[in-house]
Amino acid sequence: MAPRYAPSLRSRLAPLLLSLQTGFIIIYAFYTEVKNNGTTDRNTLSNFYPEFQDVNVMVILGFGFLCTFLVRYGFSGSGFNLLVAVVATQWAIILNGIESWYYTGKIRVDLKSLVVAEMCTASVLISIGSVLGKINPVHLILIALLEVSGFVVNGWLLQTLLKVQPLTSIMMLHIFGAFFGFMVTWILYREGSEQKFEKEKFDRKTGLFSMLGTVFLWMFWPSFNSVLVDDPQRKLGVVCSTYLALAVTAVTAAAVSVLCSPKGRLNLIHMLSCIHAGGVAVGVAMSVVHYPWEAMIIGFAAALISTFGFHYLKIHMLLAFQCHDTCATLSTHGLPGLLGWLAHLLLQIKDCDDYTTAVRFAVFHICALLLTISTCLSTGLVTGLILKWSFWRPPQNKKCFDDQAYWEFPNLVVRK
Amino acid sequence: MAPRYAPSLRSRLAPLLLSLQTGFIIIYAFYTEVKNNGTTDRNTLSNFYPEFQDVNVMVILGFGFLCTFLVRYGFSGSGFNLLVAVVATQWAIILNGIESWYYTGKIRVDLKSLVVAEMCTASVLISIGSVLGKINPVHLILIALLEVSGFVVNGWLLQTLLKVQPLTSIMMLHIFGAFFGFMVTWILYREGSEQKFEKEKFDRKTGLFSMLGTVFLWMFWPSFNSVLVDDPQRKLGVVCSTYLALAVTAVTAAAVSVLCSPKGRLNLIHMLSCIHAGGVAVGVAMSVVHYPWEAMIIGFAAALISTFGFHYLKIHMLLAFQCHDTCATLSTHGLPGLLGWLAHLLLQIKDCDDYTTAVRFAVFHICALLLTISTCLSTGLVTGLILKWSFWRPPQNKKCFDDQAYWEFPNLVVRK
Amino acid sequence: MAPRYAPSLRSRLAPLLLSLQTGFIIIYAFYTEVKNNGTTDRNTLSNFYPEFQDVNVMVILGFGFLCTFLVRYGFSGSGFNLLVAVVATQWAIILNGIESWYYTGKIRVDLKSLVVAEMCTASVLISIGSVLGKINPVHLILIALLEVSGFVVNGWLLQTLLKVQPLTSIMMLHIFGAFFGFMVTWILYREGSEQKFEKEKFDRKTGLFSMLGTVFLWMFWPSFNSVLVDDPQRKLGVVCSTYLALAVTAVTAAAVSVLCSPKGRLNLIHMLSCIHAGGVAVGVAMSVVHYPWEAMIIGFAAALISTFGFHYLKIHMLLAFQCHDTCATLSTHGLPGLLGWLAHLLLQIKDCDDYTTAVRFAVFHICALLLTISTCLSTGLVTGLILKWSFWRPPQNKKCFDDQAYWEFPNLVVRK
Repeated sequence: MAPRYAPSLRSRLAPLLLSLQTGFIIIYAFYTEVKNNGTTDRNTLSNFYPEFQDVNVMVILGFGFLCTFLVRYGFSGSGFNLLVAVVATQWAIILNGIESWYYTGKIRVDLKSLVVAEMCTASVLISIGSVLGKINPVHLILIALLEVSGFVVNGWLLQTLLKVQPLTSIMMLHIFGAFFGFMVTWILYREGSEQKFEKEKFDRKTGLFSMLGTVFLWMFWPSFNSVLVDDPQRKLGVVCSTYLALAVTAVTAAAVSVLCSPKGRLNLIHMLSCIHAGGVAVGVAMSVVHYPWEAMIIGFAAALISTFGFHYLKIHMLLAFQCHDTCATLSTHGLPGLLGWLAHLLLQIKDCDDYTTAVRFAVFHICALLLTISTCLSTGLVTGLILKWSFWRPPQNKKCFDDQAYWEFPNLVVRK
Repeated sequence: MAPRYAPSLRSRLAPLLLSLQTGFIIIYAFYTEVKNNGTTDRNTLSNFYPEFQDVNVMVILGFGFLCTFLVRYGFSGSGFNLLVAVVATQWAIILNGIESWYYTGKIRVDLKSLVVAEMCTASVLISIGSVLGKINPVHLILIALLEVSGFVVNGWLLQTLLKVQPLTSIMMLHIFGAFFGFMVTWILYREGSEQKFEKEKFDRKTGLFSMLGTVFLWMFWPSFNSVLVDDPQRKLGVVCSTYLALAVTAVTAAAVSVLCSPKGRLNLIHMLSCIHAGGVAVGVAMSVVHYPWEAMIIGFAAALISTFGFHYLKIHMLLAFQCHDTCATLSTHGLPGLLGWLAHLLLQIKDCDDYTTAVRFAVFHICALLLTISTCLSTGLVTGLILKWSFWRPPQNKKCFDDQAYWEFPNLVVRK
Repeated sequence: MAPRYAPSLRSRLAPLLLSLQTGFIIIYAFYTEVKNNGTTDRNTLSNFYPEFQDVNVMVILGFGFLCTFLVRYGFSGSGFNLLVAVVATQWAIILNGIESWYYTGKIRVDLKSLVVAEMCTASVLISIGSVLGKINPVHLILIALLEVSGFVVNGWLLQTLLKVQPLTSIMMLHIFGAFFGFMVTWILYREGSEQKFEKEKFDRKTGLFSMLGTVFLWMFWPSFNSVLVDDPQRKLGVVCSTYLALAVTAVTAAAVSVLCSPKGRLNLIHMLSCIHAGGVAVGVAMSVVHYPWEAMIIGFAAALISTFGFHYLKIHMLLAFQCHDTCATLSTHGLPGLLGWLAHLLLQIKDCDDYTTAVRFAVFHICALLLTISTCLSTGLVTGLILKWSFWRPPQNKKCFDDQAYWEFPNLVVRK
């Protein structure tokens, strides 16, 4: 007979967190400094701070509450998201600063490095959507460490080998996160997932909590795309393009959702997952999107592939490839990311004057994609294999999607 | 026997949304440009962006979650609000840009035009509070299109005929929205509404979701009123006045709510609906409110009429006028808006030096109100008559206030 | 037999609120002016406004929803929080302006005075966490008035007698609030509290609402600590330090929570309450925290004492001292505040060049703490004794932690 309780994490999670945190503090003590980028005038800081907070809200609140839709997994969805985010951000600051440490001996910490670190974190949060509910917090911390490392290495490779601009390489986070998550969830496939898990469902109230997270992501996506753009005219363009693309995506996703349903009803999960597709695609392509209508068409196409992808691809992935993707991140971040990549290619080629430059760009662009995908698949493979080790005490199938495996419910009483 | 299911919207909603969205994209492709207003320096953009986001949060999150209080209508309350908001905003950008298109051939899209468009959208969101739960999403989209058109025409008439300032005419949105909603809900009156609908109630959790939306509206109302004010000293005045008026309103609404109750208890719905009354009234009157205490007295009076109005007027409107107003927008936006209009009149007259100017202003001011009310009532009449057409497949009485008419609940399971 | 209903507050709450509000309006009418601090240029206002809103969101939404975790006390938790906040803020603006009134005849109202007032309000909101659920709204209003007065007097004493900087004295709010609340809840101890109250528990959904408030507090704590810092380089330092301290606290609190649990599970209430401890401690010590690692170590220590304090201290306080502290504010704000005070002392001594200065500083610093604690304990004592008067109609034990004592639930129907 299977054990009644989920395995205790006392001897795994607590030492891991404490030693990690001690290590981080030591590294920060010796190698970091808080320093602004030369011009520390009041305006620069105050102008940047609200955008930093928007991104922070998306990472902590948006992704966190988006994951609360599962009926018995709300505490884990939002709580583990916070935990992963703070670990990944601290780690990403260190890794992103290695170059600066190499030249100056110090890792610089300022608002910009925090924002970049939170973007690396976002790729982790996208990945864990794929495995949500099926792994324990120890796994999550390991994913955070390994994926951030892979993502930073990928960015460094893109910039060194292919001279990809930093902004473009960061925006690969959607593709990286989606395919990384795909690989991990494929390796961690559990026998018996063809039938749905008992607790993998939502109800009226958890749907609303998830709606809340979604709405925060949706509202602040223009900040997410524009925060690292410096030139004010470009920044305005990115904000307006992203806003319009998101608006188009919301309308289109609703229409497609109604079309997919035999009774002509909307599907809340479609809405929750797919209304960001336009923001994702425009983010990936943003350096070449110059007119609002380009963004709107990208948003329209992103909504189409994302919603149809969610509707048809998710179940096929499960049955044909034995890949159980809880939040369908492949459809909601992977496909729109690829679409954005394609739009970038086409729009750039359209802008090229001569044939040679166009071909040259296309080759580079395709190499960048292949490099990213191979990095993320290989990192995902390694991560998945590490996580398969039973030393980490994975939850039993029965304890999947259940807060009770990880959270104390002493008859739900406050005082102990 | 009545059909068991609500009518399918597959053949109505999807084509409407897709064709609308395609039309919008075509218009945007030919007639818009993203361009900042001459001085595109970094500070201007970064200073304006946080206020734009505050307004965006109010429109998408605030109004959306305010409408989640109905116990079985939370998905619709927040989801349809998002849908209406994005359609109305895209449409409002086009309509507001017609004048610029006429002169320069292009509709300008920048943060300011987005904010103005979201304010037009706010008037729609106020209106749909009146008919919340009794109409289907096709109706909502039609209301969005028609009301935005009416509101823009009204603003144009006010500015052309009566030389009303743009800011003052935009702030008429509360009065416009409330009376438009009143007209529509009066025309769409359903037999049998005298007894309350079975599902027209709230519970502990939906009350908290609604509280969340309310709190966001309350917190960001100073941004809503001040966002379009340019002069920094005036802006500070508007922010502080609105903040103090809202504070007074919250205290007064609580007191009145206790007084209205025989057992001396607070009424959550009073709190949710009426604590914005001060913000509404100060917003309408803001161009002449120069001292905090003026704003506080306006807030006090607004709370009184709004809370008493909610308590006594709502039921009278229903029984005497056959007008079923779900969110009592007439009390919560209409009466405070009229109060703000009156305060504007009185304060302006007090400031006038001579009798002639005062009378002249009073006549103009009264004309502006009459023009607004007649525009919104006539637009509302037309809209209501169009919506009465059964081609749009209105829900049966039994399906009112129920998500299940429009959202898939496949045993509330995520995976299909 | 005990009465079945909670006592009606109609004759207590409504007159109190209305007369208070009328009094405030009269004071504002005669003695306030809205005026910016000399340099009213656009940038200054626009730079400060987003930080003001962050603090506003923390005070209204963060503290409000943090208090919604009790299963039947959500309306009161968030609604009374709003009521207390607006009363306390209006009162704090007046009290803080007395000095300026003395010299210039006018109390200045601008964004900075609003922020300072909201910080005084925060100390009240911390205190009422201790007595949450056990007192009625009339009590809460009285606490708001008395505690704000005590806090302002304390700040004035610190600045006059000990030349403590305004910023340092304001940040004493955590210590002040925690010990004030401790005193009040000790005096208002109810017989029978040793057994837990029937309704003093949380459930899955209220836990998530509380998580929402917590997350907002957590995200915007860097704004809370940095909002009153003027120098941009210092401001950046405070933001980064607070962010890192909060990150460390979240990781450490999770680890300690797992260690405290025999089954190795996380405790949601630990997470909700203790992940701000780092922000609190860094806030108190911020004027001498110059490196990120100092902040991180402070955050680490704060998480340790806060989580262990919550786990072991709360029950001891109850059984040994007959002090029932609903939200354990002593552990979550009091101990981290004291830790911050200690860190301030140690870091300052480390920076001192000679022995005399160090001793001199230490004496002053200890005096500042003793003065604050004696002020808050004595104000708390007076407040507690006033609240004990049965004229204020305290709820019966059975009606504690229950919305139904104060909110109308007419079968939870909207229309009356």
